[in-house]
Amino acid sequence: MKTNPGRFFEDYRLGQSIDHAVPRTVGAGERALYHALYPARHALQSSDEFARACGLPASPLDDLLAFHTVFGKTVPDISLNAVANLGYAEGRWLAPLWPGDTIRARSTVIGLKENSNGASGVVWVRTTGLNQRDERVLDYVRWVMVRKGDRAAPVPQTVVPDLAPAVAAADLVVPQGLDFTRYDFAQAGEPHRLSDYRIGEKIDHVDGVTIEEAEHMMATRLWQNTAKVHFDATFRPDGRRLIYGGHVISMARALSFNGLANAQMIVALNAGAHANPCFAGDTLRVWSEVLEKAETLAPGVGAIRLRLVAVKAGAAPFTLRGEDGKYAPEVLLDLDYWALMPF
Amino acid sequence: MKTNPGRFFEDYRLGQSIDHAVPRTVGAGERALYHALYPARHALQSSDEFARACGLPASPLDDLLAFHTVFGKTVPDISLNAVANLGYAEGRWLAPLWPGDTIRARSTVIGLKENSNGASGVVWVRTTGLNQRDERVLDYVRWVMVRKGDRAAPVPQTVVPDLAPAVAAADLVVPQGLDFTRYDFAQAGEPHRLSDYRIGEKIDHVDGVTIEEAEHMMATRLWQNTAKVHFDATFRPDGRRLIYGGHVISMARALSFNGLANAQMIVALNAGAHANPCFAGDTLRVWSEVLEKAETLAPGVGAIRLRLVAVKAGAAPFTLRGEDGKYAPEVLLDLDYWALMPF
Amino acid sequence: MKTNPGRFFEDYRLGQSIDHAVPRTVGAGERALYHALYPARHALQSSDEFARACGLPASPLDDLLAFHTVFGKTVPDISLNAVANLGYAEGRWLAPLWPGDTIRARSTVIGLKENSNGASGVVWVRTTGLNQRDERVLDYVRWVMVRKGDRAAPVPQTVVPDLAPAVAAADLVVPQGLDFTRYDFAQAGEPHRLSDYRIGEKIDHVDGVTIEEAEHMMATRLWQNTAKVHFDATFRPDGRRLIYGGHVISMARALSFNGLANAQMIVALNAGAHANPCFAGDTLRVWSEVLEKAETLAPGVGAIRLRLVAVKAGAAPFTLRGEDGKYAPEVLLDLDYWALMPF
Repeated sequence: MKTNPGRFFEDYRLGQSIDHAVPRTVGAGERALYHALYPARHALQSSDEFARACGLPASPLDDLLAFHTVFGKTVPDISLNAVANLGYAEGRWLAPLWPGDTIRARSTVIGLKENSNGASGVVWVRTTGLNQRDERVLDYVRWVMVRKGDRAAPVPQTVVPDLAPAVAAADLVVPQGLDFTRYDFAQAGEPHRLSDYRIGEKIDHVDGVTIEEAEHMMATRLWQNTAKVHFDATFRPDGRRLIYGGHVISMARALSFNGLANAQMIVALNAGAHANPCFAGDTLRVWSEVLEKAETLAPGVGAIRLRLVAVKAGAAPFTLRGEDGKYAPEVLLDLDYWALMPF
Repeated sequence: MKTNPGRFFEDYRLGQSIDHAVPRTVGAGERALYHALYPARHALQSSDEFARACGLPASPLDDLLAFHTVFGKTVPDISLNAVANLGYAEGRWLAPLWPGDTIRARSTVIGLKENSNGASGVVWVRTTGLNQRDERVLDYVRWVMVRKGDRAAPVPQTVVPDLAPAVAAADLVVPQGLDFTRYDFAQAGEPHRLSDYRIGEKIDHVDGVTIEEAEHMMATRLWQNTAKVHFDATFRPDGRRLIYGGHVISMARALSFNGLANAQMIVALNAGAHANPCFAGDTLRVWSEVLEKAETLAPGVGAIRLRLVAVKAGAAPFTLRGEDGKYAPEVLLDLDYWALMPF
Repeated sequence: MKTNPGRFFEDYRLGQSIDHAVPRTVGAGERALYHALYPARHALQSSDEFARACGLPASPLDDLLAFHTVFGKTVPDISLNAVANLGYAEGRWLAPLWPGDTIRARSTVIGLKENSNGASGVVWVRTTGLNQRDERVLDYVRWVMVRKGDRAAPVPQTVVPDLAPAVAAADLVVPQGLDFTRYDFAQAGEPHRLSDYRIGEKIDHVDGVTIEEAEHMMATRLWQNTAKVHFDATFRPDGRRLIYGGHVISMARALSFNGLANAQMIVALNAGAHANPCFAGDTLRVWSEVLEKAETLAPGVGAIRLRLVAVKAGAAPFTLRGEDGKYAPEVLLDLDYWALMPF
């Protein structure tokens, strides 16, 4: 058998370390494609000049481009037989991704819990992205429900990792040299600084985008994500291709520019739920809620913790959960992240 | 209110200067995407070697890529509440765009005229694109019809700018170093030089392209153009996404290669009308008419003024206007521009 | 007549040499687009670090990217009036393509045979791709059936070239410096080396991709292939756009990663048939058969000769020919090539 059938639940062991295959060099091409696939406008990732004025050597690649590249590498080892992508936690960006960098990824199994039905189980992994200098660029935990290949396989001891509800502000890593003291609000697109946002404030980001098959497949391929369900219209009984959740994350983040133009870099992923599946033809709208604010040690650089929610067009403003406490059917994404913003 | 609702007619003042947000660095990625989105084949923008043989340091980015990038920056300030994009004039390319350049844009309001219905008005702006050395790369006038936000707002004094019907040949700016005396017609794809074209000559460019949603959205996003009507299928009552007029311009220009392979660089935009809306599924065909010819001071470099017309497939050859003098319904674009050509 | 009507059968002469137009510089942008359009994961073309560990100065552009770029240049001269693309032979990659290289192409007519119906004939050409240093990067023979423009044109002497059924292993050109003695199988994605494959072994590559109009048109444009049938939905009576055969080749090759992750570089194209037309909406699946194995003089570098077959989803496993010896209707591609693999 030469092809990779993917791991089943019983193939994971607590503490197991997996080096994911196919390192990837990223650069000017991936950067341009990111701007073609998403309405990304944050100035730091758009302009070398703006980035230099903020103390960086050049414009870094989008933080989510780093996330998708690392995530894509894990798919053949972690989620090929996944039933569901259940959650994220403790995600931190540790160094910017620069054009020419080569990324690889490694995961450690940190939790296992077989489901009571004996047909599947939940696997928790901590994944690290590394660049060509062996520096960590990204670190996050995700957990997925994976099918068992052999229902008779022994039940592992249940270990559920103790995960922080959010990355503490003190643990955020600000890119070296970042300095917002001479930040150009006019060129960035909006005048609002951290002090202009209040905790609990909600923002309707106004814009919407209708999603096409060609776009989400190009994006998902670009990250070398191999999950069949995104590409093969014959895979699901309903003949629809499920859109990679990360495509929704990037689209939502880009759409949040209008109202959060100065939330410049994503530095932490606290939690995330793909509340409902997204398909081509869906039109995405986005709203945000300010959850927390903090200072950092870098000059002029504050941090804002945001809830980012993507819904289908037609949903009422700020739709999130129904009376039963469950996500409303129009909700596609509920993401909790930290971004850096001039204070 | 954190989001940008866009300016309304009463928000513009004569002489007002607007620095548009989000500078953008462009390079090898945007260049490749331009070639993927349009059937662009002009040799000067395709090959570093060809460009060097013509006296340039490298292959410049497509002239229309410069136009779209500058145009895109103006959208949040100029045309978010526009009802119609009415015209272009006095457009000149002043310096080539090289990979690694960072572009920003600035506009000045040069004309205002409220419509008699009191619901909207026409705004004329002169827009300049600047590179990271503060050199002007592009300069053009466009006028748009913009809705009033408050119909009771006072009527401004009417000022209609006096615009040249076309850029004079003497005002064309030839890129520094350009030299067509050793021009390789075989590698460029056609033997026709400026003297082979006669004024009044019409060329049917033969080829056609059927347009897809994913392509025009990727193109329009790449230029960071945020107009909702191009992306959101729920925006128009008919559920169709209007294609950015610049996508039609680039598609038409690229299709005109077949017959105008040596019309190498666009140096002026004299006038332009988006005669009818374009939607996904339309198949574009293109014809040109030679309007004027001129010499320049650069060695071997002449200039050709062309009318470029894009029509929907099925239109009779050289369709333009009906007996009533109005554009025929199959006409999508009527563009008047100057290009450089070996004489 | 300024536009190119394309050559007809009677326009070709035995021994005629054709310099194809529009040289093309390729780089980081084309590389990223290749990864967005195809699920390409071979490590050598994905990572500069992996390529350096294999003795190369950097990650080369995909071998098929070189093929498509050269092929695209020939279309206006060879296949604009082609009825069918009949075959390939004696294809060899002679030097890698590096970012920044400029490619041009030249063909020589090596065979002519008019069909008995007097309406068309077969033209054989040997095409060479050259880089900016005049080094040959690729060389192959293809033959196409071309319409006659004038049925009364004289019948040329029939010359059918004597073509090798496959490139001999001794004639394969290994890129300078390539060394697989420290090859990292874990990072490459699979443990299988040349000795793990047996002649006659068949591999079902498991994955599938459903093809979209926007994707195949972007790919085909990127190679500056101008054949109308790929772009213009009004060209064929059935309103369908025929997908460029090379798009199927690249999709099939990329899908064969799963099971052939270590078949790192394509060095020869022995034969190829586009058995049936491919259209948007088709879902591709792929299988391979090991035809031959060989050593090379480069350290650790072996060669594997493979049959690569693309079929439409729903075809039985390893579908190829019917009882009548003809390709089954679900078969899209039957390709015979050599790739380099660690032994």
